[in-house]
Amino acid sequence: MVDEPRSGCPINAAVEVLGNRWSLIVVRDVMFGDRRYFRELLRESEEGIASNILAARLRELVAAGLLTRADAGAGRRAAYSLADAAIELVPVLAELGWWGVRHLPTSEALRVRAELLYLGGRPLWDDFMAELRERHLGIARPDPTRPSVAAQLEAAYLDATARAGAVGSA
Amino acid sequence: MVDEPRSGCPINAAVEVLGNRWSLIVVRDVMFGDRRYFRELLRESEEGIASNILAARLRELVAAGLLTRADAGAGRRAAYSLADAAIELVPVLAELGWWGVRHLPTSEALRVRAELLYLGGRPLWDDFMAELRERHLGIARPDPTRPSVAAQLEAAYLDATARAGAVGSA
Repeated sequence: MVDEPRSGCPINAAVEVLGNRWSLIVVRDVMFGDRRYFRELLRESEEGIASNILAARLRELVAAGLLTRADAGAGRRAAYSLADAAIELVPVLAELGWWGVRHLPTSEALRVRAELLYLGGRPLWDDFMAELRERHLGIARPDPTRPSVAAQLEAAYLDATARAGAVGSA
Repeated sequence: MVDEPRSGCPINAAVEVLGNRWSLIVVRDVMFGDRRYFRELLRESEEGIASNILAARLRELVAAGLLTRADAGAGRRAAYSLADAAIELVPVLAELGWWGVRHLPTSEALRVRAELLYLGGRPLWDDFMAELRERHLGIARPDPTRPSVAAQLEAAYLDATARAGAVGSA
């Protein structure tokens, strides 16, 4: 499924799969935005990904074993899900987002969500990955009583958005 | 120095700077290989980066504030160093390398190095970043008695390479 990498280096192997402008953005949108269909991945793209680019990246991510595509048959939309390899990118995205917060211009609402994810550390990442395995792979979480990480991230985002709105109207 | 990102998302901001085939590879070679000059970055590239690509990525990384370039004057080679923003990529590279080890084909010697870096966790990453700040920014390490992370990584790599050689000659 994956071409033989140019070298034996794990970083190079990872960059060969993920090292382009859009692959991690698509994974982010499936993972954090729970966008599972081409149309919503395209229309709701905050960065305005182009249709042909999205189609190409989805094809590659499926071929590389990061996403699965459930073909729903004639007239029905294909649904994309995270494969386990993509779910295991949570720590990478957490560290990358934290680096982005500290070094680049970002918005308050999305900064708050990246902070929460980073500061929660490995326990939060493990919880989130368990949640994603349940949602995408049908593997029940070991402890369903634990608070939803997705819900925590969403609450932080909405809270920051509301505060930004309140400031604007003061 | 950095164009305004397309969205307020920290992950997108990071990917806009790093999301291409070679930028993280160049950072890796300066950081782990201590390659500071164009010629060695080109000639020693395990993945065979092309000269024009390397030149373009170095220019961009300097413009983005991840690398600094010390112009040594007529007839002398320019030396590249990690800026603090690139040094702070250590956790990203550690997680990315670990993900590569677990999901993609890699060589024993480089896998061992990535494992050591990942399993050392945040204490090792902090030590390594302190070492890099000393080497690249001239900021003395808080505790110079701590064992060198670069030396540990190199020893693990040489050890695994020697074992691979011994197996081959058995």
